[in-house]
Amino acid sequence: MVSVAIMGHGVVGSGVSEILLTHKQKLFASVGEELYIKHILDLRDFPEHPLADRFTKDFNDIINDIDVDIVVEVMGGLNPAYDFVKQCLLKGKSVVTSNKELVAAKGAELLQIAKDNNTNFLFEASVGGGIPIIRPINQCLVANNVSEIAGILNGTTNFILTKMINEGMDFDEALKLAQDLGYAERNPEADVEGHDACRKICILASLAYGKHIYPDAVHTQGITKITLDDVKYASIWGGVIKLIGKVKQLPDKKVDIVVAPMFIPNKSQLANIDDVFNGIMVRGDCTDDVVFYGKGAGKLPTASAVVADIIDCVKHLKNRKYLFWADSDNSSVIDYKESVTAMYLRTVSDDTASAYNKAKELFNDIHVLECDTAKEGELAFVCEPMAYGTILDNIDALNNSGIKVESAIRIGDL
Amino acid sequence: MVSVAIMGHGVVGSGVSEILLTHKQKLFASVGEELYIKHILDLRDFPEHPLADRFTKDFNDIINDIDVDIVVEVMGGLNPAYDFVKQCLLKGKSVVTSNKELVAAKGAELLQIAKDNNTNFLFEASVGGGIPIIRPINQCLVANNVSEIAGILNGTTNFILTKMINEGMDFDEALKLAQDLGYAERNPEADVEGHDACRKICILASLAYGKHIYPDAVHTQGITKITLDDVKYASIWGGVIKLIGKVKQLPDKKVDIVVAPMFIPNKSQLANIDDVFNGIMVRGDCTDDVVFYGKGAGKLPTASAVVADIIDCVKHLKNRKYLFWADSDNSSVIDYKESVTAMYLRTVSDDTASAYNKAKELFNDIHVLECDTAKEGELAFVCEPMAYGTILDNIDALNNSGIKVESAIRIGDL
Repeated sequence: MVSVAIMGHGVVGSGVSEILLTHKQKLFASVGEELYIKHILDLRDFPEHPLADRFTKDFNDIINDIDVDIVVEVMGGLNPAYDFVKQCLLKGKSVVTSNKELVAAKGAELLQIAKDNNTNFLFEASVGGGIPIIRPINQCLVANNVSEIAGILNGTTNFILTKMINEGMDFDEALKLAQDLGYAERNPEADVEGHDACRKICILASLAYGKHIYPDAVHTQGITKITLDDVKYASIWGGVIKLIGKVKQLPDKKVDIVVAPMFIPNKSQLANIDDVFNGIMVRGDCTDDVVFYGKGAGKLPTASAVVADIIDCVKHLKNRKYLFWADSDNSSVIDYKESVTAMYLRTVSDDTASAYNKAKELFNDIHVLECDTAKEGELAFVCEPMAYGTILDNIDALNNSGIKVESAIRIGDL
Repeated sequence: MVSVAIMGHGVVGSGVSEILLTHKQKLFASVGEELYIKHILDLRDFPEHPLADRFTKDFNDIINDIDVDIVVEVMGGLNPAYDFVKQCLLKGKSVVTSNKELVAAKGAELLQIAKDNNTNFLFEASVGGGIPIIRPINQCLVANNVSEIAGILNGTTNFILTKMINEGMDFDEALKLAQDLGYAERNPEADVEGHDACRKICILASLAYGKHIYPDAVHTQGITKITLDDVKYASIWGGVIKLIGKVKQLPDKKVDIVVAPMFIPNKSQLANIDDVFNGIMVRGDCTDDVVFYGKGAGKLPTASAVVADIIDCVKHLKNRKYLFWADSDNSSVIDYKESVTAMYLRTVSDDTASAYNKAKELFNDIHVLECDTAKEGELAFVCEPMAYGTILDNIDALNNSGIKVESAIRIGDL
C-alpha cells in the first residue's frame, strides 16, 4: 500500500480523489499496490465527503507523516504551493502537480531538489490537461532533436476565437458566453492576455531544450484586440486566427519563443482544433510533425493526468524517473524584436493607393488581401518574413504617415 | 556503457544505427550511459558501412554475448524473428521491436517470457511509427477506462484513399502511384486488404484491455472494392472514406473489434488526416477523446520510436517496466455479425421506386443520399444502426429481389 496526500480539494483535487476511488481496481492492476488517500488538505470543510475523516487544514499532518510517499499539489497559485512542494521534496516525498504557474516559475529549482533527494517531481497535468504531452516529449521523442513546438494551449481563448470565427460573435460577446459557461474566470486576464499559454509553452520549451525558460523572457500577446474584421481577413488569406504558443530552436541553439494570435492556414492540423480543445505540434528531426489533441482542461481530464503521474511515482519510488532541466538566466532566448515572422496588417487611411505605395516601400513585397466588403480607406496585406523589430518600426512609420495600423497579427508558419 | 545488438539492417534497422550514431550526445544526456552498437545481424554484406566490422550473419554472436543487454529486432516477419526474440528474452536480454506481425501473433507469450525473466519487451514502433501511442496508452491514460480506440493505422491505404478523394483517381491508379512512390509494396495485399491495420488494432486492443486479441478474431475488410461513386456519396453524406481499425468495449466487457473502410464525418478529427499520415483516437472515461497524429511509417520516424524504447530499456535494466497483457482465447471478442453499425448501401435496379420501398421494408428507416449525377437505376442510402448480420441478410434479400447491392460501407460513429 502506498499512502498519498492531496493538497487542495478544488476542481482538480476532487477529481483526483474521485478517480482514485472509482478506478481503484484498474489502478491496482496496473501498479500492483493499493493507493490509499491518507490526507486531503483544504481550508474548507467537506463534512459530506466520503473521505471526510481524512481532511486536514494543517500541512504539518502531511509533511510529518512518514507513511506519506506521494504528495499531490493541486492548490494552484505560487503560495503556499511553492513552499509546501519544496518541503515535501526535501523530505524525499514524491510530488505530483497540475500547477503550471508553479512549474513555469520554479520548475528548475524543484527538479534540482527532487534530484538531490532522489525523488520525483512530475507535472504531466500542467500542460494540455488530459492530453499526454510531457511524457511523450520526455520519453517517446527522446531520440529527436526537437526543432519546434507550437500549440493551442489555452482552451478558453480557443473557445472565444472559435465563436468569433464560426458564429460571428465579437470578442466581448464571446468572452461573456465563455464566462457564462464557466470556461472563463470572472477576471479573465490570465487566459485572454496569454499568460496561461505562456506558462505552458515555457514548460514545454524547458523540457525540450533542457534549460528553464521563464515566462518573463517570453513576448506575450493576448487576443483582446482581435476583431471580426481580422477574422474575415484570415479567412480571405485561407486560414483562421488561433492563439499560439510557439518555440523554435535556431541554428545557433538559441530559442525564439512567443505567445501571440496567429493566422494559421486551413490545411494545418492546428486549424481544425476548435472550442475548448487543445492541440500541440512537436516537430522532431526524425519524426517530423507529431500532433497531440484533446481536452486541455476540466476536472477529470486533468485529474486523470495527475493520477497517471501518481502511478509513475509508485513505480519509481526507489528508482527516480529521469525528468530534468537545468536552471538558466534566459540568455538562450533571443530578443523578441529579432524574431523573424511574416505579418498581416490592416490599415485605414484617406487614400488606399498611397497607403499601398507606402507599405510596399517599407515592407518591399506585400500581398494585398482583397475584400469586397472592405471599409472605406481599408487596406489589408501580408508582408514577407522579417524581423519583428523592423515590422514595429514600419508600423510606426505608417502611423506617422497618417496610415493608421489597426491590426497586426503574425502569420503562423505551421 | 550499454551494448546493443540490432537484428536486421533494412529500412528501420539502418535508421536505428543512424540515430544511435548521429544523436549520440543527446541520448547520452538523457540516459547517462553510452549506447554501443556491438553487433548488427544481417545476411547481406555492408562493406562500406561505418560499422562494417560489427556486422555478423550468425545469431549466436548475439545470443552468446553476455555483454549485450538490449537486442533490437527489426527484421520483420514471424520467422526467424519469433525464435530469436524468444531466445533473447529467455536469456534475460531486453528486446525492442518494430515488428507488428510478431507482436500481434506472439505478444502475450513474449510478454510472459519477459516477465518471467525480469526483462523488458517493448514495441512502441509497432503501431503508428513515430507517433507515441503505446506508452501514452500504457502510462499516460492509465487512470482511464478506455471505451474505444479508432484509428487510421495504415499510411499506404490512407494515401490511396486521399488520392481517390482529392484527385478523383480510381483505386488502381492510386495504388499504382503509391507503388511508384515506394509507399506500397509490389504485392500490396497486407496493406490494401487491411491485414496491417488489423495487426495494429490488435496490439492496441490487447494493451488497452489487458488480454491478447489475435488477428484471426478480427473481421477485416480492405479498400479494394471502394469506387469513386462511393467517394462521391461519402461527400454527399458529409464525410470521407477512411480505412479504420476500431475496438470498442461493450457494457458486458466484451469487445467489438473491426477493420473496415468507413464513412467518417468531416467534423471528426480523423477526417482531416490525409496522405501517408496516421491518426489514432483513444476515448477514455476521464479524458474523453485524445488524438495522436503523425507519420505512421518511414525509416527515421519508426527508428526514433525504436530508439526511445532502447532508452527506456537502459533506464529499466534492473527494474522491469510494467507493460503486460495476458494470453486469451479470443472469447472476449463478439461475433462480427453481432456488431451494431449504421451502413451506407449503393444499389442498382430496374426501378428505383420499388428498390426504395424494398429497402425501407427491410431496414425500417433509411436516409436516401440524393445525387444529381446518379446513374440510371442507382439508389444510395444510409440505414440506422443494426446488427451487421441483419445487414448482411438484408443485402442478400435485396440481391435476391433483383436489387443489386454494389457497395456496403460502415458509418463510422467517430
